[in-house]
Amino acid sequence: MHTLWTPLSGGVTAPQGFKAAGLAVGLKASGNPDLALLLAPAGAVCGGVFTTSVVRAACVDLCLERLASSGGRVRSVLINSGQANACTGDRGLIDSQRATAAMADRLGLDVEEVLICSTGVIGVPIPMPTLLAGLDPLATALTETGGNAAAKAILTTDLVEKQVALEANFNGRRVCIGGMAKGSGMIHPDMATMLGFFSCDAGVEASLWQSMVRRAANRSFNAITVDGDTSTNDTVLAFAAGEALPEDQLVALEEGLTTAMQQLAQAIARDGEGATCLIEVQVEGAADDASALSVARTVCGSSLVKTAVHGRDPNWGRIVAAAGRSGVMFDPEALALWIGGHQLMQAGKPVPFDRDAASASLREDRVVLRLRLGDGPGSGVGWGCDLSDQYVRINADYTT
Amino acid sequence: MHTLWTPLSGGVTAPQGFKAAGLAVGLKASGNPDLALLLAPAGAVCGGVFTTSVVRAACVDLCLERLASSGGRVRSVLINSGQANACTGDRGLIDSQRATAAMADRLGLDVEEVLICSTGVIGVPIPMPTLLAGLDPLATALTETGGNAAAKAILTTDLVEKQVALEANFNGRRVCIGGMAKGSGMIHPDMATMLGFFSCDAGVEASLWQSMVRRAANRSFNAITVDGDTSTNDTVLAFAAGEALPEDQLVALEEGLTTAMQQLAQAIARDGEGATCLIEVQVEGAADDASALSVARTVCGSSLVKTAVHGRDPNWGRIVAAAGRSGVMFDPEALALWIGGHQLMQAGKPVPFDRDAASASLREDRVVLRLRLGDGPGSGVGWGCDLSDQYVRINADYTT
Repeated sequence: MHTLWTPLSGGVTAPQGFKAAGLAVGLKASGNPDLALLLAPAGAVCGGVFTTSVVRAACVDLCLERLASSGGRVRSVLINSGQANACTGDRGLIDSQRATAAMADRLGLDVEEVLICSTGVIGVPIPMPTLLAGLDPLATALTETGGNAAAKAILTTDLVEKQVALEANFNGRRVCIGGMAKGSGMIHPDMATMLGFFSCDAGVEASLWQSMVRRAANRSFNAITVDGDTSTNDTVLAFAAGEALPEDQLVALEEGLTTAMQQLAQAIARDGEGATCLIEVQVEGAADDASALSVARTVCGSSLVKTAVHGRDPNWGRIVAAAGRSGVMFDPEALALWIGGHQLMQAGKPVPFDRDAASASLREDRVVLRLRLGDGPGSGVGWGCDLSDQYVRINADYTT
Repeated sequence: MHTLWTPLSGGVTAPQGFKAAGLAVGLKASGNPDLALLLAPAGAVCGGVFTTSVVRAACVDLCLERLASSGGRVRSVLINSGQANACTGDRGLIDSQRATAAMADRLGLDVEEVLICSTGVIGVPIPMPTLLAGLDPLATALTETGGNAAAKAILTTDLVEKQVALEANFNGRRVCIGGMAKGSGMIHPDMATMLGFFSCDAGVEASLWQSMVRRAANRSFNAITVDGDTSTNDTVLAFAAGEALPEDQLVALEEGLTTAMQQLAQAIARDGEGATCLIEVQVEGAADDASALSVARTVCGSSLVKTAVHGRDPNWGRIVAAAGRSGVMFDPEALALWIGGHQLMQAGKPVPFDRDAASASLREDRVVLRLRLGDGPGSGVGWGCDLSDQYVRINADYTT
């Protein structure tokens, strides 16, 4: 039986018992909101997924350490959006520890229960007096309807806010998942960390929850690519707190978590700098799911595919060439390709197709490319966006 | 003792005993030259390096098979630049076999001694009557000064011809290496195979030569990136024929081969569509050379680094972020970075620098970025080009 997840409002505070806040405390020169807080109810567990870059911000190290030492028993995360606090030397970790210690005191929590995520300019330390002065007003502003304010305060270069909330009925019990994210591709690398925060009002054992968060992130945030660049601060955190769900309902819960993450991941790809459409690459018939995802990500990330889609050019040669260099083995003589509903290749060879109709399907807001590699059981989906001259102009003209 | 390699003219026919030809036989609608032939003297050995894409043209399979079955005893290669003969099914291999068999007959060679390379539109078969009719005039046109004509006939979308010839004195004996290449990034993927052909008038044992060709290609053609895309037909072939060199002189010979390949590889990167400069990324202090090359290639290939260079923006954050996601482990606290002669980072942290002077060094025709990862013995160099809005316009507007 498939559990139906329906959308609602409220973002990260839609699930019961979660509180959030977002304020402008002076970390951004623009005066825009720049400090956010998320607080989960007592008993919460937290799962996390982080950047794989070896150059990573102090806050990432702090999150990894505390999740490990506490066994995932973490209740809160502080998010500052003025400075990334990366490439700041020893001071970076000291500042992160001070900020979370002060926040924990104010909230009456153990310091191990509070994490911090930072996004903003690389190489610049957080102005600590400004941040510390903001913690009391931030804690005071915490409410069960604070999701919107928090979602605004974590943004940097994003053109649009990114929130989600879904609910489902589990044998008469309402379960809700909420989320917020920021990031629009690593378009301004000094300002473009990808962050995602999720909340869930069903209880799950900590190590099971971490596995669910990892799998859901792999099928969402790890399946998007805007320009192939990865930030020093990329982080996804998800909190679960509430009456425990029976184990046989965890699959349905993970479906909801995956859907919530996919919606925000797609919103990030669609918000890529200069993007005019979302590209969805569906790959099927692979040896396994990981191979399918690799092919999907390589096709999504190809500059040539991205520019062809931008030009509404049904250029199957570029798609095939990208699939071929993905590092995944497949039989090129079995390859089939569709753009929208139009088949362009069969058995590794081009087939006649209606060029105008295929080009028209490249004008949709969600462009779907489908590749069948063979008759294996593996499938996967990746998302990206087109590459426009606007992207180049913005990134070339940007001054550090 | 370092052997001095000095430039000369003549391209692939500069070495003694090599003959080449290039003609327009009607494979290209434009009427431009489209068929080339290179013939090495008797006793030649041939080494090859090929695309790693699983979607590869029939000619690549044919080259691999013949080099293996003949133990590298190959004397000639036929190159057609009208059609890539990729994604053409069984017919692709049959046509490649027919073309080489006819060429071998005409040259009085065994069919195993003749290879074929194709570049042009993907998915379109070679018009065989046209090609076969061109073989006799091509063989008739073979001369020891045919390097220029051959270099023209292998081009597709290239803006400039790419040839090299170097000579050195080996204890009183003159040794010469020549080469020609085509490719300007996989900018028109239907037309943008990278091909390189080299000749050398010193004899080397076949398996030693293959190893030398592989290493030289790794330090040249495999160290450039224009847009990260790899073609179905990419091939480098190098022929060596002549009096054998003593084994203790092979290192000096390999230096010359590497230099020749690097010059043409850099010419390809510089000729990238819309490029306004060559980017050279030098990486030192890595654990090993392979790690250094991985970092260099990742930095060269980063869209954000490429656009920053295009905008003459000394954006160290983008360079560090690219190095960090390269998959190579290093201590970020040891990282140092220079743009031109200007140091921007030391011990993982930014240092004050003259922004105007650093920006000026990004205006040179060869922009040099230098990264020191630590104090390991590994080093490597990669080359690429900047990313301009011109690149996007050309690729988006291109119609299959």
